[in-house]
Amino acid sequence: MPEVIFGLGKSAGHVVAIAERLLAREGNVLITRATPAMAERVVAELPDAEYFPVSGAIRFWRNRVKTGKGKIAVVCAGTSDISVAEEAQVTAEVMGNEVEAIHDVGVAGIHRLLASSERLAQARVVIVCAGMEGALPSVVGGMVSVPVIAVPTSVGYGASFHGLAALLGMLNSCASNVTVVNIDNGFGAGYVASLINRL
Amino acid sequence: MPEVIFGLGKSAGHVVAIAERLLAREGNVLITRATPAMAERVVAELPDAEYFPVSGAIRFWRNRVKTGKGKIAVVCAGTSDISVAEEAQVTAEVMGNEVEAIHDVGVAGIHRLLASSERLAQARVVIVCAGMEGALPSVVGGMVSVPVIAVPTSVGYGASFHGLAALLGMLNSCASNVTVVNIDNGFGAGYVASLINRL
Amino acid sequence: MPEVIFGLGKSAGHVVAIAERLLAREGNVLITRATPAMAERVVAELPDAEYFPVSGAIRFWRNRVKTGKGKIAVVCAGTSDISVAEEAQVTAEVMGNEVEAIHDVGVAGIHRLLASSERLAQARVVIVCAGMEGALPSVVGGMVSVPVIAVPTSVGYGASFHGLAALLGMLNSCASNVTVVNIDNGFGAGYVASLINRL
Amino acid sequence: MPEVIFGLGKSAGHVVAIAERLLAREGNVLITRATPAMAERVVAELPDAEYFPVSGAIRFWRNRVKTGKGKIAVVCAGTSDISVAEEAQVTAEVMGNEVEAIHDVGVAGIHRLLASSERLAQARVVIVCAGMEGALPSVVGGMVSVPVIAVPTSVGYGASFHGLAALLGMLNSCASNVTVVNIDNGFGAGYVASLINRL
Amino acid sequence: MPEVIFGLGKSAGHVVAIAERLLAREGNVLITRATPAMAERVVAELPDAEYFPVSGAIRFWRNRVKTGKGKIAVVCAGTSDISVAEEAQVTAEVMGNEVEAIHDVGVAGIHRLLASSERLAQARVVIVCAGMEGALPSVVGGMVSVPVIAVPTSVGYGASFHGLAALLGMLNSCASNVTVVNIDNGFGAGYVASLINRL
Amino acid sequence: MPEVIFGLGKSAGHVVAIAERLLAREGNVLITRATPAMAERVVAELPDAEYFPVSGAIRFWRNRVKTGKGKIAVVCAGTSDISVAEEAQVTAEVMGNEVEAIHDVGVAGIHRLLASSERLAQARVVIVCAGMEGALPSVVGGMVSVPVIAVPTSVGYGASFHGLAALLGMLNSCASNVTVVNIDNGFGAGYVASLINRL
Amino acid sequence: MPEVIFGLGKSAGHVVAIAERLLAREGNVLITRATPAMAERVVAELPDAEYFPVSGAIRFWRNRVKTGKGKIAVVCAGTSDISVAEEAQVTAEVMGNEVEAIHDVGVAGIHRLLASSERLAQARVVIVCAGMEGALPSVVGGMVSVPVIAVPTSVGYGASFHGLAALLGMLNSCASNVTVVNIDNGFGAGYVASLINRL
Amino acid sequence: MPEVIFGLGKSAGHVVAIAERLLAREGNVLITRATPAMAERVVAELPDAEYFPVSGAIRFWRNRVKTGKGKIAVVCAGTSDISVAEEAQVTAEVMGNEVEAIHDVGVAGIHRLLASSERLAQARVVIVCAGMEGALPSVVGGMVSVPVIAVPTSVGYGASFHGLAALLGMLNSCASNVTVVNIDNGFGAGYVASLINRL
Repeated sequence: MPEVIFGLGKSAGHVVAIAERLLAREGNVLITRATPAMAERVVAELPDAEYFPVSGAIRFWRNRVKTGKGKIAVVCAGTSDISVAEEAQVTAEVMGNEVEAIHDVGVAGIHRLLASSERLAQARVVIVCAGMEGALPSVVGGMVSVPVIAVPTSVGYGASFHGLAALLGMLNSCASNVTVVNIDNGFGAGYVASLINRL
Repeated sequence: MPEVIFGLGKSAGHVVAIAERLLAREGNVLITRATPAMAERVVAELPDAEYFPVSGAIRFWRNRVKTGKGKIAVVCAGTSDISVAEEAQVTAEVMGNEVEAIHDVGVAGIHRLLASSERLAQARVVIVCAGMEGALPSVVGGMVSVPVIAVPTSVGYGASFHGLAALLGMLNSCASNVTVVNIDNGFGAGYVASLINRL
Repeated sequence: MPEVIFGLGKSAGHVVAIAERLLAREGNVLITRATPAMAERVVAELPDAEYFPVSGAIRFWRNRVKTGKGKIAVVCAGTSDISVAEEAQVTAEVMGNEVEAIHDVGVAGIHRLLASSERLAQARVVIVCAGMEGALPSVVGGMVSVPVIAVPTSVGYGASFHGLAALLGMLNSCASNVTVVNIDNGFGAGYVASLINRL
Repeated sequence: MPEVIFGLGKSAGHVVAIAERLLAREGNVLITRATPAMAERVVAELPDAEYFPVSGAIRFWRNRVKTGKGKIAVVCAGTSDISVAEEAQVTAEVMGNEVEAIHDVGVAGIHRLLASSERLAQARVVIVCAGMEGALPSVVGGMVSVPVIAVPTSVGYGASFHGLAALLGMLNSCASNVTVVNIDNGFGAGYVASLINRL
Repeated sequence: MPEVIFGLGKSAGHVVAIAERLLAREGNVLITRATPAMAERVVAELPDAEYFPVSGAIRFWRNRVKTGKGKIAVVCAGTSDISVAEEAQVTAEVMGNEVEAIHDVGVAGIHRLLASSERLAQARVVIVCAGMEGALPSVVGGMVSVPVIAVPTSVGYGASFHGLAALLGMLNSCASNVTVVNIDNGFGAGYVASLINRL
Repeated sequence: MPEVIFGLGKSAGHVVAIAERLLAREGNVLITRATPAMAERVVAELPDAEYFPVSGAIRFWRNRVKTGKGKIAVVCAGTSDISVAEEAQVTAEVMGNEVEAIHDVGVAGIHRLLASSERLAQARVVIVCAGMEGALPSVVGGMVSVPVIAVPTSVGYGASFHGLAALLGMLNSCASNVTVVNIDNGFGAGYVASLINRL
Repeated sequence: MPEVIFGLGKSAGHVVAIAERLLAREGNVLITRATPAMAERVVAELPDAEYFPVSGAIRFWRNRVKTGKGKIAVVCAGTSDISVAEEAQVTAEVMGNEVEAIHDVGVAGIHRLLASSERLAQARVVIVCAGMEGALPSVVGGMVSVPVIAVPTSVGYGASFHGLAALLGMLNSCASNVTVVNIDNGFGAGYVASLINRL
Repeated sequence: MPEVIFGLGKSAGHVVAIAERLLAREGNVLITRATPAMAERVVAELPDAEYFPVSGAIRFWRNRVKTGKGKIAVVCAGTSDISVAEEAQVTAEVMGNEVEAIHDVGVAGIHRLLASSERLAQARVVIVCAGMEGALPSVVGGMVSVPVIAVPTSVGYGASFHGLAALLGMLNSCASNVTVVNIDNGFGAGYVASLINRL
């Protein structure tokens, strides 16, 4: 298991200090929700830092043993959801998994999603990130027979209420193989998917 | 246009009286949300009443001129949504339209929906009724290039909050051709679809 | 159909790149929710761009064939709602429609609205944008017998809850010919109205 | 001022006992929200009781001095709102006012409301009861230059959320002369209107 | 009646232009919710402007005829509520009323409020502004027998939800003489109080 | 400490069985939220049961040692709040406290509350139960310098939203000595007050 | 996979008919949310029906092959949560899993939970059902390193808002191995746990 | 009792002026929610100011008499909750109490909390600050038999809704000795704990 630092609300100096301490004893360290300024400092002060600017993740990936027994698919509905999908992917990879990224397959263009069904079918666990109406996990859930972890994103405006619409939609999914994590919680989805993929 | 009586909260006697008065001067009359007791009395006292027990609609359909220029498709996600779909269909028919009913094509079984794509393609307007996560209108919206009227239903439990989850989902649809009516408002959907189909 | 780029949250460079690619193959392109900085760059780099600063829309309108069979009326309640009404109008025009703009006819001055009844009566579809209590679609809905698309706007303060009050009001409209789109979704209203006006 | 007993949740026996005690010393007594069973017992045991079954009000109106200096108009949108309007009227009358009842003038049929403008113009205070979208107070507010007291009613279904939609609409009224009371609080509206009409 | 310009969201130039036009034909003009920059420009360009920086109101008060028949009391709970109380007072004054300002009499120090009871008793209408729990209107309502207009303010944090707690509290007031306006709507309260005080 | 059985949702037989078992080894047992049928059976089958029908509490009070060092005042706003106040009082008594009950002192009649100030002043802890706007704890909090435990009750209608208005009001109290328990949780208030009074 | 019939809202006759048809071709069938009357009829008409009255589940368990590779622990907080836990257990069993039931280990008695840590440690997946504050999944999540599926239950009153408090709590869990299903959705939890346990 | 200035929304100059006046006559003064700029000015202009930058508290602690009869424990779940815990501690100390700070003992690492049980057991009152799911007060409540004051913090994202999830969780605590204050209200918790500890 990597050590994880939740960057949101911490100072850059504090994050560097924690990361330094953890890196002294751990193989892998993951920082989530880093601001650009924080990332700049981390990258400047610590070797091996991979920075993912879309999601704000920073990864120290020293131990690259594959512990996952199969692939994890990370699916997202629109290009705006990629930040959350990236956090899920970075997490799953640093936890020892091979990830199949399937982006921009929103339900209003169902044929794009159907065209990905073979890639979906090869996954042992599927993570689905979607904002707005949050419909994608239900459709994906019906296409596969493995666990689907749904991540509502805060993408949208007006009556999306910062991800609430997508969250409620996913909790009410008519597909029985769907469970849900908090809004924008790509990390949590990647983490649980990794636990499942180790089994 | 038929005359319409909203039955909810009215007494059976009151509904019979209004219906009698309207029938004296109109061709078609529609009663919505009738209770079984109300329906029994209406059917007993007024000739020509067609009672639809699933939705509680009662129809007096004397003038059967077709004013709609094409078909209206009425699609629903699950068998529990049929009561709302039936209200939409009964309304659209009494307003002079041919209706194509496509039931039980929820998004978790996407192939059933895709198998209906030809029937969908023949419609000039599509009504989509769905509860729970309310994802169906977005998928249907992407399959057709005509207006889609989405009706959230109160089907569901827990975090569906009596149809709120479906309502929010539909308002945030990523398909641009979707508009929304109130929860369980099959009548309104049938009415607007009829106005569109006359054009 | 024009190609549409949803500008919100995208970088100016990204938007220019997408627009360039689309313009190479399409007649018409519409960018919505552009920031002033994004608009400045688009206008500087791409010929033919019409920028609408009130709504943030940018339009490339090369193919001006009228496909709408009648007029679309775009009605708004107050001057603060014009940004949303403009987005609806720009969309409907680029999709081949003639638009009749009827602004500043809020329900608290009912005679201004009534004075517009002839212009309203000539429309085949009506779009109504209103914030605060969102009452205008119900009144307009009673004045016309064509479909009315209601757009709640986020105009207001306090218990308007960023457009929620208007949204709920419109969903509960006592006029049967009203359907609703998301808060501030002028684009969606213009899009659906265009689909209807083609029929 | 009459003495007032809020009947909701009290036993019939308790209400009779309180009423008996108050009638021994007061001219006028008003009971609100009586159930039919409670009303039957009150009428059986106490002389002079006037029972209003639509609203559940019971009135003992012994002192009929007019203290109001003008008329109070009580306006309602639909027939389902009459229960609340009746409570307002009964209250205003027992507090010494002449009431002008203007029913069934919902905003979707604006000409019916406009036809009442002369009667409205004669009122010193106007009470407006409306459910669903709650738009009527804004329109009435624009037609008169006296205080308007808006009463949201719980009439509606789905996204009316038991009167919440109407309440929010009224609080956001674009007419400056509107204030609001609790959902279904016809009594409060009648009470405040009476205080104003005494001035 | 003064002409009123709602400043929120308008540009300074636009406000100056409207004010200029109105001042050419009206005695009194009121601008509400002006930003400091807007106020600076208005004061610089238009003579007679009185600027109230706490509430953002700007007043042109040329016709000072008293049309109110008595005093209006404007009461507020804490010093943070004064911005809303000031808007109410400025409005009531420019509409021809004498105002009695009673500030900082929150319910947790009930003796300060009781010490104001004589001043309260002289008012024909009372406006009460309060944030947080919004309890003050109920207490004041019990101390006077005239209409009380309650203004919830957005003062508070956490579970005040930007004034929602105070709003709900006021709508549920156990004092029968209380009506409510929108959160922070000092203008509306001053306006309605003025209408009442003219009677 | 007494043993406590939360009766809501349990069968009468189950409650009798648990009570029997506890009474075999404990001095005092308290059953809360008993239905009338459950109470009837408990009273019939178990000796010493005191039944409090207003709150649904049943008490077995065998060990009557006073462990509280002073009085606990239990204050309530209206007669409808007495059920919750009774639950608090029964709990505090069975936990060894002397209770001073001060009922029907709602804030709209502030002089009744002020008349109780001496009785309030003698309490070491104060419990305040109020529904509707929930204003009473703030006023009481300002009158005493001891801890105040506020209990919102579900008394009210419309925008009280089953006690939510009172709950939010109490959480936002401007009196610093107020803490809050769940809606209608008289038991919890009595329990914590007893813990405090033992100190 | 068993076939599943969601009983809520269906008629007993309809359920019997579906079950009969499914039993003709499937090994295992599960009916959820059966009412007592529905259960009575199913048990009377169909052989092999096991009825679980606490949860309303009915099971036809003919094919008892174990497909799960380890144990699934089903944990619940209080006795009132057992109905949901039972639905999860019945589902997991009929899908071929061995279930370890750990009941009544709410967080306010942390030592009871800790005493179960060895049983927890043997599970490959853990389901945790809790109402009220929904805290149990976070504590359990910290005790195990396998996936935890949290089921909020509607147990509680007042500010539990029918399970909303527990749902929000679980979505915000500080344990990274927790995912969430809909309120009272024991079936969904059992289903996903079974999918995971097959891996 | 110290005098308290709520800094939020006040100008630095105003705060200095109030503090100066209070310091002339009081022993102790506490300023809460000071911004860094405000703190800088207060520290520069007034002697003896202790500034606590994490919480924004400023303390003038001249009279250091211990009035509390025992210790107050201030417990917090994560490092992000320390700002609220610090406000509670600073308040309790300036009110004459010895404080035992127990930080970073969130429920997902239950052994860290259990390791603090002796320190907890020595407290006469316990304050527990937690964001996210707000589970900590329930666990702590079960470990001690003294009053627990729960402070929900706004720490979290997505479905924490700025502390609402933690607030609801704490109000529904299954531990009977828990009462709750407003979100982030460390001051209120410290204040009430001090009142209790004086008894």
